[in-house]
Amino acid sequence: MAMKLNERGLLVVISGPSGVGKGTVRKALFDRENHNLEYSVSMTTRPPRIGETDGIDYFFVSKKQFEQRIKNEKLLEYAEFVGNYYGTPIDYVEERLDKGKEVVLEIEVQGAMQVRERMPDAVFIFIAPPSRQALRDRITKRATEPERIINKRMQKAEREFGMAHKYDYIVVNDTVENAADRIMAIIRAEHAKTERSIHKYMKILEVE
Amino acid sequence: MAMKLNERGLLVVISGPSGVGKGTVRKALFDRENHNLEYSVSMTTRPPRIGETDGIDYFFVSKKQFEQRIKNEKLLEYAEFVGNYYGTPIDYVEERLDKGKEVVLEIEVQGAMQVRERMPDAVFIFIAPPSRQALRDRITKRATEPERIINKRMQKAEREFGMAHKYDYIVVNDTVENAADRIMAIIRAEHAKTERSIHKYMKILEVE
Repeated sequence: MAMKLNERGLLVVISGPSGVGKGTVRKALFDRENHNLEYSVSMTTRPPRIGETDGIDYFFVSKKQFEQRIKNEKLLEYAEFVGNYYGTPIDYVEERLDKGKEVVLEIEVQGAMQVRERMPDAVFIFIAPPSRQALRDRITKRATEPERIINKRMQKAEREFGMAHKYDYIVVNDTVENAADRIMAIIRAEHAKTERSIHKYMKILEVE
Repeated sequence: MAMKLNERGLLVVISGPSGVGKGTVRKALFDRENHNLEYSVSMTTRPPRIGETDGIDYFFVSKKQFEQRIKNEKLLEYAEFVGNYYGTPIDYVEERLDKGKEVVLEIEVQGAMQVRERMPDAVFIFIAPPSRQALRDRITKRATEPERIINKRMQKAEREFGMAHKYDYIVVNDTVENAADRIMAIIRAEHAKTERSIHKYMKILEVE
């Protein structure tokens, strides 16, 4: 494969504690005009629900296919949840990056740490709540489950809080638009980073 | 002095080869609305010209005063040029940073390397021309001097070209507005960087 030093996009990992509003921020990003983002479609072994389309909502595969991918290291990250696998297919991501797209992954903290190992040059963004109380309110408001489940979820969020230092950036979700602005600025700045742009710059220096 | 972990501004060093348009980009930044930037006023031993105001155009000081500052390490960087000193007073910069301002230095490559040693957590931005020819055109167009001087200036620019890898970011000055946009994005992203924002984040985590 030929080296494509300039055109390759960034892998942008948006993560953070459960209930912080990762999905809302991600949607706000994609609602913007003139972006060059592409959402990474996950792969799952759970059966499609009514209205879900293969390749758009998820890539729907069999358990055998998924386990083959695990074995062949064809997943950037994966997890098992209530008997089903969920993961990010590496070939899909690589193809989009090579096309110059900024590929956005919106994943849980555990998954982000797996991606870090496979793709160290990805950009890792931790979405943080404006306060611990704000996150508590969000989890409580959203939940239709009994208090025991809510407490469990809050405990999970508390553990995930402690992972912020493993990320490149911390983006406070004070308002969704502010958070989206910050992420767009991060993507723009990352492209200008010397270690990413020096090859392009060396081409400028070549005698015409 | 009390630690002010959150409010402190960034020191933003805008530099690059002679003739690349650093000054124009810097002016475009300051023309923007709602910025929090402050331009660092240089100190010089050259006498004020008509219309120049002390503390606005330069801090005008005596040679003795300047050399005392060199001795006491009260300058972020300095150089001698045609018998006069030019430099950046460190106390002025620190005071503005503590007030939460983003202090912008627009300086030559040699000066930027001096700042790097004194303030390693500053943000170093190398302004690059869109092509070597573009820089040649700029230097030629601007110059009212004989060809020998122009060639000398071009040679200096060529040497300065090679310093890009010592900067944090390379911002191509394809258009002034694009370059200014990129710098604003860099400032915003730098504030979200984990190593700069983790202390603020830790405060969020404190129980209210």
